[in-house]
Amino acid sequence: MKYFLRVNLTEKSIIKEDVPEKYQLYGGRLLTSSLINDEVDPLCDPIGPDNKLVLAAGLLGGVNIAGSGRLSAGAKSPLTGGIKESNAGGTFARRMSNHGLRAIILEGKSTEQNLVLEIRKDGITLNNYPDLKMKGVYDCTLILQKQYGTDWGICLIGPAGEMRLASACINNVDTKGIPSRVNGRGGLGSVMGSKGLKAIVVEPSPGTPSQAKKQKEIKEVIKEFTEIIQKHPMTPIYQRYGTILMTQHALRLGSMPCYNFRQGSMPNTEHLKAENLTKVIEDRGGEGTPTHGCIPGCIMKCSNIYPDKDGKSLVAPLEYENLIMLGPNIGITDVDQIAALNYIANDLGVDTIEIGAALGVAMDCGVLNFNDYEQARSAMEGIYQGTVLGRLLGQGAYMTGKILGATRIPVVKGQSMAAYDPRTFKGIGVTYATSPMGADHTAGHTLRFPVDHHQAEGQIEASLNAQKDINVYDSLGLCNFTLPQTIAKPEVLAALVSNYYDVDFDTSDLRNIGTEVIRTEYTFNRRAGFTNNDDCLPDFMLNEPLPPTNKVFDVNLAGMKNIYKDILK
Amino acid sequence: MKYFLRVNLTEKSIIKEDVPEKYQLYGGRLLTSSLINDEVDPLCDPIGPDNKLVLAAGLLGGVNIAGSGRLSAGAKSPLTGGIKESNAGGTFARRMSNHGLRAIILEGKSTEQNLVLEIRKDGITLNNYPDLKMKGVYDCTLILQKQYGTDWGICLIGPAGEMRLASACINNVDTKGIPSRVNGRGGLGSVMGSKGLKAIVVEPSPGTPSQAKKQKEIKEVIKEFTEIIQKHPMTPIYQRYGTILMTQHALRLGSMPCYNFRQGSMPNTEHLKAENLTKVIEDRGGEGTPTHGCIPGCIMKCSNIYPDKDGKSLVAPLEYENLIMLGPNIGITDVDQIAALNYIANDLGVDTIEIGAALGVAMDCGVLNFNDYEQARSAMEGIYQGTVLGRLLGQGAYMTGKILGATRIPVVKGQSMAAYDPRTFKGIGVTYATSPMGADHTAGHTLRFPVDHHQAEGQIEASLNAQKDINVYDSLGLCNFTLPQTIAKPEVLAALVSNYYDVDFDTSDLRNIGTEVIRTEYTFNRRAGFTNNDDCLPDFMLNEPLPPTNKVFDVNLAGMKNIYKDILK
Repeated sequence: MKYFLRVNLTEKSIIKEDVPEKYQLYGGRLLTSSLINDEVDPLCDPIGPDNKLVLAAGLLGGVNIAGSGRLSAGAKSPLTGGIKESNAGGTFARRMSNHGLRAIILEGKSTEQNLVLEIRKDGITLNNYPDLKMKGVYDCTLILQKQYGTDWGICLIGPAGEMRLASACINNVDTKGIPSRVNGRGGLGSVMGSKGLKAIVVEPSPGTPSQAKKQKEIKEVIKEFTEIIQKHPMTPIYQRYGTILMTQHALRLGSMPCYNFRQGSMPNTEHLKAENLTKVIEDRGGEGTPTHGCIPGCIMKCSNIYPDKDGKSLVAPLEYENLIMLGPNIGITDVDQIAALNYIANDLGVDTIEIGAALGVAMDCGVLNFNDYEQARSAMEGIYQGTVLGRLLGQGAYMTGKILGATRIPVVKGQSMAAYDPRTFKGIGVTYATSPMGADHTAGHTLRFPVDHHQAEGQIEASLNAQKDINVYDSLGLCNFTLPQTIAKPEVLAALVSNYYDVDFDTSDLRNIGTEVIRTEYTFNRRAGFTNNDDCLPDFMLNEPLPPTNKVFDVNLAGMKNIYKDILK
Repeated sequence: MKYFLRVNLTEKSIIKEDVPEKYQLYGGRLLTSSLINDEVDPLCDPIGPDNKLVLAAGLLGGVNIAGSGRLSAGAKSPLTGGIKESNAGGTFARRMSNHGLRAIILEGKSTEQNLVLEIRKDGITLNNYPDLKMKGVYDCTLILQKQYGTDWGICLIGPAGEMRLASACINNVDTKGIPSRVNGRGGLGSVMGSKGLKAIVVEPSPGTPSQAKKQKEIKEVIKEFTEIIQKHPMTPIYQRYGTILMTQHALRLGSMPCYNFRQGSMPNTEHLKAENLTKVIEDRGGEGTPTHGCIPGCIMKCSNIYPDKDGKSLVAPLEYENLIMLGPNIGITDVDQIAALNYIANDLGVDTIEIGAALGVAMDCGVLNFNDYEQARSAMEGIYQGTVLGRLLGQGAYMTGKILGATRIPVVKGQSMAAYDPRTFKGIGVTYATSPMGADHTAGHTLRFPVDHHQAEGQIEASLNAQKDINVYDSLGLCNFTLPQTIAKPEVLAALVSNYYDVDFDTSDLRNIGTEVIRTEYTFNRRAGFTNNDDCLPDFMLNEPLPPTNKVFDVNLAGMKNIYKDILK
């Protein structure tokens, strides 16, 4: 992983650069955010030629361990107007690493559309594929796989990205070749679309672990890391249930957004619990499976394939966030309907969280009805046709609410909250409010912290620690689902870096990543015009009690706005 | 004019205050902008309870001279997010003055809707009129006139204001009782609507010129002022043609926006010239008239009533801006169709300029067709029904373009340009770019300056002088159409103030108003987060040549951003 690939879409130039000295030990989120902060004008138009899209492998992207190989995508966000990093599983980052690529930096803006960047062992080219125009993600993947091979790494956008809608995501294929892994948040698909790029394909190439500088030593550490994962009591639970495990916690806390965040739970949702859903998947059988790996070599296999009654795949995966944001948040509890909406969102290439929130807001305004699957489906499908409602929803919850005159818009910095109501999951509320990412549960999830999630006390500290921790894993390219098991053994993570790069890298270097990411992203946002006033939840969360617990968000606002004081001083 | 009327809609309190010392010689725009800057949090939600709407008479509002009695409305704009002053003719400000009211300050936000503020000689009350809910401006005016009398001052909003759409305006009745005079720009109608206020009615009350402190002396100056107006060669031209005189200049310069600012002229537009349109009005007769006064006592009578073939009024007035923005800008040249669209806009209570620009953008994106009257009408009427397209257009050109993915949006600071393409009317382009008002021709019209409007040279100076000049007239409450005649005689304007208030007020005090308005408005906008980067035209105006002259906007950008350097230092 010694190279940057710099592709200028205006000039159609492709340059392979050695990773500069400054970035030698930068990977994943630290790398994307640093490159964006260093190279992008914070005041530029996010979908103009001056924005850049950086795709980076983590620092451990080339190491074949469980959960390693996440892809970080970074840019100025069309949704928030601030800096964004969004990361995803799949095979793309591992394939990049195997070519020695630490990052792909996409610059400029082509007048052509539907360009495909081909990365082969024997060369890198940029080609125009007019046939891909406005193709859905699933069809487009099949066409590309037919052209290149099912084992190629593929990262692509759907119609929403081509239309430059602010909720457009970037989709990546998993180990089964399904475009199931998504850089979902922040509208980065529209940045890719604005440059005229429809897809990037990467030829498989051997390389791991051969690129490690200290092969013998790293093998020992890999063994230790794997044992920690395997012996941890959470691992089999993650393996069996994946993210839908969160349903239990959300129901217990009354923190499951229902009807556009009007309630924290609703009747007839027992079947959404992980054990019940998993049983349905197993009973239906066929293509369905509750456990499915997304990154090559992952032993966690937290993903799933949700089948219909005849065993045919409805969508893969069905994650907790999608289940709730396209389910109870819009009044729907029928999982087959939710799965069908999820499939459409994936095919359009829109963030399921953002579009679910946008639908919820439109329903709250009376433009659509809650619990009306046909209406929701038709409204989303409007994006294919370019209907005004479809485009509006595709611009995200904030714009939808703003245009429709909503007073209850569950967003921070223009980005919708995920499937955790902050009034009863207060640590995540602090993350929503303060993170430079906008409302994003992945920027600092506080479930594992020893706090009462209903109470204000201790949440600022929990969120800050969660933010710093995840910054490290996002920068190493490690999955969130290895964090609870390995966070107490930072020396193992540091040893992986030391041996891979043959450098002195210790746990203080790891901690520095956690704070440096915050400093970098915060700095970009300030330069883009953000102020303390952007670090707050919407008013209704502070004033409107959430049934059934009737809690409001009551974490000290001044304390929240000072959350980074020790890091920034 | 010794009082402020402060009405808090949250508390339903009505307080009459003496004008504080600081504001003794503040009127119109200087007063509204100063009150907003002094009292409103620049970071507040424009349609939340913390914004205020100030309605102010000019410093000469109580003086019965031609063009005196304009109403300034000021608030934080929902359209631009910055400070806004929008002024209009009609009888309202004169009626206010006659009650001794310098300004009405509307604060807070009622949970009730359709409140009417009644200002009578014997008391001031706030009453709820549920029957007015979503009533169009014309119907609502008739209902209020039936209730109160045709000679009452009425200021009201239409459905768009109640829906808090960012292009909503405030309508005022003229001397004939027609709700024809509009505080159009900046969405101030939605600020009024957000407070729950549908209308303000003011009982006629004698008073002028009895309130002047030096009656005898002021009579002499009024005589002098009137003679200057009457003797000026432009006066009879304004009287005969009004604002549609501008068609000639726009056609000559190739500066008439056609097809969403794609062209500066188009075929078959000779009939839009003032002499031809005036002839049609006269030939059709009936209710139609080319000359019609809007403020009591005005001798300019620049307004008109445009009749249909049977002599029945189609709309009053048909102004140059509306004629072009709802005409050639959307590909329509049939004046009867344009007049019908203008009537609908007035009835909805939306700014004709903003909705015309929004329609143009939607047409440019292919959502509607150019030159399709039925589609345009139906899209606008969608606002009555709350259709998604209707609401989108009602949020203005910027939001419409943003949602529809437009790359050509003719706005500055979120507000649409008026019917002058800045590529061939460069001084107005400088005003669009730099004025704290956003793109607003009324903030500094450069027609009368001795510059070549096609060339870059001299435009910054022309715009700055135009801005300072109009700030004075807007603060005195004098109509723009008295400016060319009287601008060379500032001592007469100063003498009117001196004698009305019995103070020493000279031409340097007048000049101070010109700069103080800029300082105040600029300061508010900076506190609201605006930077130099907001003081620029959209990219396409800098790069896309405008047929038939094929000019681009080429005024020095750095110079523009420093336009206020001498004022701000």
